[in-house]
Amino acid sequence: METDTGRDMYRWASDLFPIARSLTGPGVRETLSYLGGLMPGLTVHSIASGTKVLDWIVPDEWTLRSAYLEDEKGRRIIDVANNNLHVVGYSEPVDAWLSLDELQPNLHSLPAQPTAIPYITSYYQRRWGFCLSHAQRQTLQPGRYHAVIDSSLEPGVLNWAELILPGQTEQEVLLSTYICHPSMANNEMSGPVLVTALARWLAALPQRRLTYRILFHPETIGALVQLSRNLEALREKTIAGFVATCCGDDAAFTFMPSRLGGTLADRVATHVLTRHAPGYATASFLHRGSDERQYCSPGVDLPVVSIMRSMYGRYPQYHTSLDDLSFISPDGLAGSFAIMRRCIGILEANVTFRTTVLGEPQLGRRGLYPTLSTKESAATVHDILNVLAYADGQHDLIALAERIGLDALACEAIARKLVDAGVMEILPD
Amino acid sequence: METDTGRDMYRWASDLFPIARSLTGPGVRETLSYLGGLMPGLTVHSIASGTKVLDWIVPDEWTLRSAYLEDEKGRRIIDVANNNLHVVGYSEPVDAWLSLDELQPNLHSLPAQPTAIPYITSYYQRRWGFCLSHAQRQTLQPGRYHAVIDSSLEPGVLNWAELILPGQTEQEVLLSTYICHPSMANNEMSGPVLVTALARWLAALPQRRLTYRILFHPETIGALVQLSRNLEALREKTIAGFVATCCGDDAAFTFMPSRLGGTLADRVATHVLTRHAPGYATASFLHRGSDERQYCSPGVDLPVVSIMRSMYGRYPQYHTSLDDLSFISPDGLAGSFAIMRRCIGILEANVTFRTTVLGEPQLGRRGLYPTLSTKESAATVHDILNVLAYADGQHDLIALAERIGLDALACEAIARKLVDAGVMEILPD
Amino acid sequence: METDTGRDMYRWASDLFPIARSLTGPGVRETLSYLGGLMPGLTVHSIASGTKVLDWIVPDEWTLRSAYLEDEKGRRIIDVANNNLHVVGYSEPVDAWLSLDELQPNLHSLPAQPTAIPYITSYYQRRWGFCLSHAQRQTLQPGRYHAVIDSSLEPGVLNWAELILPGQTEQEVLLSTYICHPSMANNEMSGPVLVTALARWLAALPQRRLTYRILFHPETIGALVQLSRNLEALREKTIAGFVATCCGDDAAFTFMPSRLGGTLADRVATHVLTRHAPGYATASFLHRGSDERQYCSPGVDLPVVSIMRSMYGRYPQYHTSLDDLSFISPDGLAGSFAIMRRCIGILEANVTFRTTVLGEPQLGRRGLYPTLSTKESAATVHDILNVLAYADGQHDLIALAERIGLDALACEAIARKLVDAGVMEILPD
Repeated sequence: METDTGRDMYRWASDLFPIARSLTGPGVRETLSYLGGLMPGLTVHSIASGTKVLDWIVPDEWTLRSAYLEDEKGRRIIDVANNNLHVVGYSEPVDAWLSLDELQPNLHSLPAQPTAIPYITSYYQRRWGFCLSHAQRQTLQPGRYHAVIDSSLEPGVLNWAELILPGQTEQEVLLSTYICHPSMANNEMSGPVLVTALARWLAALPQRRLTYRILFHPETIGALVQLSRNLEALREKTIAGFVATCCGDDAAFTFMPSRLGGTLADRVATHVLTRHAPGYATASFLHRGSDERQYCSPGVDLPVVSIMRSMYGRYPQYHTSLDDLSFISPDGLAGSFAIMRRCIGILEANVTFRTTVLGEPQLGRRGLYPTLSTKESAATVHDILNVLAYADGQHDLIALAERIGLDALACEAIARKLVDAGVMEILPD
Repeated sequence: METDTGRDMYRWASDLFPIARSLTGPGVRETLSYLGGLMPGLTVHSIASGTKVLDWIVPDEWTLRSAYLEDEKGRRIIDVANNNLHVVGYSEPVDAWLSLDELQPNLHSLPAQPTAIPYITSYYQRRWGFCLSHAQRQTLQPGRYHAVIDSSLEPGVLNWAELILPGQTEQEVLLSTYICHPSMANNEMSGPVLVTALARWLAALPQRRLTYRILFHPETIGALVQLSRNLEALREKTIAGFVATCCGDDAAFTFMPSRLGGTLADRVATHVLTRHAPGYATASFLHRGSDERQYCSPGVDLPVVSIMRSMYGRYPQYHTSLDDLSFISPDGLAGSFAIMRRCIGILEANVTFRTTVLGEPQLGRRGLYPTLSTKESAATVHDILNVLAYADGQHDLIALAERIGLDALACEAIARKLVDAGVMEILPD
Repeated sequence: METDTGRDMYRWASDLFPIARSLTGPGVRETLSYLGGLMPGLTVHSIASGTKVLDWIVPDEWTLRSAYLEDEKGRRIIDVANNNLHVVGYSEPVDAWLSLDELQPNLHSLPAQPTAIPYITSYYQRRWGFCLSHAQRQTLQPGRYHAVIDSSLEPGVLNWAELILPGQTEQEVLLSTYICHPSMANNEMSGPVLVTALARWLAALPQRRLTYRILFHPETIGALVQLSRNLEALREKTIAGFVATCCGDDAAFTFMPSRLGGTLADRVATHVLTRHAPGYATASFLHRGSDERQYCSPGVDLPVVSIMRSMYGRYPQYHTSLDDLSFISPDGLAGSFAIMRRCIGILEANVTFRTTVLGEPQLGRRGLYPTLSTKESAATVHDILNVLAYADGQHDLIALAERIGLDALACEAIARKLVDAGVMEILPD
């Protein structure tokens, strides 16, 4: 299943990659519309420019129609039609002839990565600029250049989309990702396609114990919008949350814990990664970089973590044109899907079991213990007895599994058998 | 003293070894009667077959009169009179002629240990069978065999014995062992003879601060009987408990902690083992195997641990005829006695001391501090000052000793001296 | 500044070194008088001999006029005028002719350190004696010796001095040192001159948040006097305390924690030592040796620690004439001053900050975040964002700094900037 899902995710990423996204504007809406086709029930919302959002203000909407740089002979040196990283995000309109020297302050390149076009934005201060590879920049000859950015920055809306998948309880799992970067693969497409795959899998489940709140929004400001509108509900209901980002390449996993650690999200993630992603690394919250910055901020304190592969800021292709579709893979995406699905599966199963008998139950007459006591007979029921020993009403499934050194889902299978045998109960939430 | 006690224990083990014990029946009563001769006041109790005991039912009483296997020529191939492991425990009666092929499903041997007769029981499902060495089994020729087990399985009683040694307080120490295995030495005789030696030592003490509840019963069902009859009292009074098992050989010690650890029993055991049994190992409660399975079960949660030598299930002779009197030794038993006696001695001494003066007391005028202050004088009173520093009413004797890196009994000697000097008090329990 | 201060401290130590101090008497008063000249406001107090002080009694006052040992030819073999360690502290008067054999029990020397004169006292039992190098002792020839100690031991007073430097709050920092040893440098002079330098620095500060209680008293009995007179106030107000001792040489630092550890004094000291004294050692409270013995005793439990260099009892020159002015240095004293000043600076700054916005504040419009978002822009504000993330009202400045891996004063600078920007507040004490 993961293989097929990996191929689906990669295809969706390929479809979405070329769209010119930014914080706001038509690229975001086109992206959300595509995702809506994959997830019935996904609802697109908007909030007006100028609205106060906690300490922030929703910026004007940016529409980019074209952007190019021509030389004196009318040759297009740079054209955003070729790569949408070529323009500084939120560039104000310009139509001017400049000398190379006049142009230079508005050009951005990376001397250390001469083939990469950098990704640059200026959301909250008016500027214009072009991004290009340093190699190309060095070929520019003195002369006159025609800089044209046909954009508008006007009051409009900021969009996001939400899908609620209700479960038997009001307890919620938050899956959050962002859709605000133009053509980059690991640090943009991987998150939305992973969340989409998870949402489709969750929607198809015959039943869900938990409710899922699934969010696609522009990074930072989108998370702040959520908090400004839903803080009390999010705080009350959210038992675990995950920011999906940088999860599409083939590198080993990197875990970003919550601010203080120890939440259910931290516990399930480390339980799964320890057993199913040996060699994973744990980053420090001091190096966080996505919407956990908002979700985990003081006074908000949602139990939110992130399971990444090559982490933002730590791989050279990050925030450049080199973070393209060749940097991610169906297998990389499928591996992230498998880990996240397992985390969610365990959260679904994470109830608290308690034995209903004092002392050990007589398993033999229930067919759960060998009736012939030999030297080896105890070993065969080792795990059953250990589940019984720690099902004391004080350990949830994850804690029980950690205690007895079993995978949580294997532990659940045993506990369910014991519930069926009438010697164990599930505590109410 | 330990040497003499070791010899006594080994002699008692030798006397008791041949008795054909099982969960119930005459072998148990004979064993308890012998122990009663060593411990005046030991009281034998019984509970009727069919009585519900928590989740269990007391089984019928098993009486084995004879059991043998003859060949066509009337030669006794196997005879329980030679070794009482030869018959499967709780075998139902049989008197039948069978071919070798028909007989095989009722024979039990250990291919990997060809000289060992395995120990097998079937308490809770009706069966019959013989146990023999694999070497002997391979000599059996095709032909007819006469299988005779003259046993009865009828309503009767299950027996156990209890000795209460009262102390100044109602706080109890539980010493529990089992008397339900036939002729095996480490995994049967070592426990009862150790508990007997401890009981005799305790009975002879001029005074006891604590009360001792000393139990000899069939494993599992016996512990369940205790819990079903005394749970509230056990929970209220028991401050520490020890299951005596597998404590007679010469191997290094193995400590079995309580289910969650950290109880007074865990603390005293690790304090003593650390100082007096260097190289001891700590087993995981996940690998428990005796009556701590019941005593530490959720909702029961007595503070019970076990200090073993070669631990059940971990030595090849376990549950075979090779676990015989040559596997245990007077020295091995004496070493276990010394450790357990020290644990109990510390529990007796484990009060909470508190200094009665603010600041350091003036030890000099009480003859506890050198009056001439030289470069070395502080060192000579180092331990006294450290006892004073941590006798804050928050550390019991064991915690105080751990803090200052002294043995608890050495620490007690200092604290008592300070009590006598009028600068320290003992907090009421 | 430390260099100048180091030279000042060394000069004061040199001035004070020759004075013949003891628990009581003119040497103490002369010392306190000299210190009073450096610290306006330093007040000298006295308590009468015979006064009960907790478990102790203030001893008689000792006045030593002269002490010498002459041979038959009137040659002064030993004269306290040459080195005030030559007489056993609190020696009762003597004027007697003795044979060498009669004299020997009253002579003290160190065979293992033949050139050192030991420091010996007998405060609480009447004795007399001379201390001399073992080398010298071995030159003594049989014959008659004239032992003269012209001293008096009479009811008088015990003196100490106190300086209170008030701050904005009643919360107090205790700086305590002793002035009761004769001519020794590290284990006597270093403490008073360090405390003097700190007091002068504190007195010159434009404002102090905290109040400082600065004590110069004879060791042990002086601390007990404080406790007997001020225990409730000390317990209520003292947030951190430091015993200054053995802090003048050039060895690496040694930290003596409080009795149970974890106090604010422990936290600030380890924060500073970890960052500014790499390679420092932590001693065990079991090896304490100065007034933390009293301040940290059970029921007193003040948060008092000690930051030393070569620790009492651990360097061979300790309590001998070899602990002279060559054993300490201006640089050694200056280093201790720098560490202690930093500790105090952090205590002054150690408030609890809390962000006043939910989610991250928009730092960009406050000029605290680059408006152009490039690959590196997040890194430049890394520390600011981390201060914001952990300024949750649950971390005081030290805890905040430890969380984010910054020095507390660097952390404070950022937090103050955020307070100025209106996105952070200081919680009231």
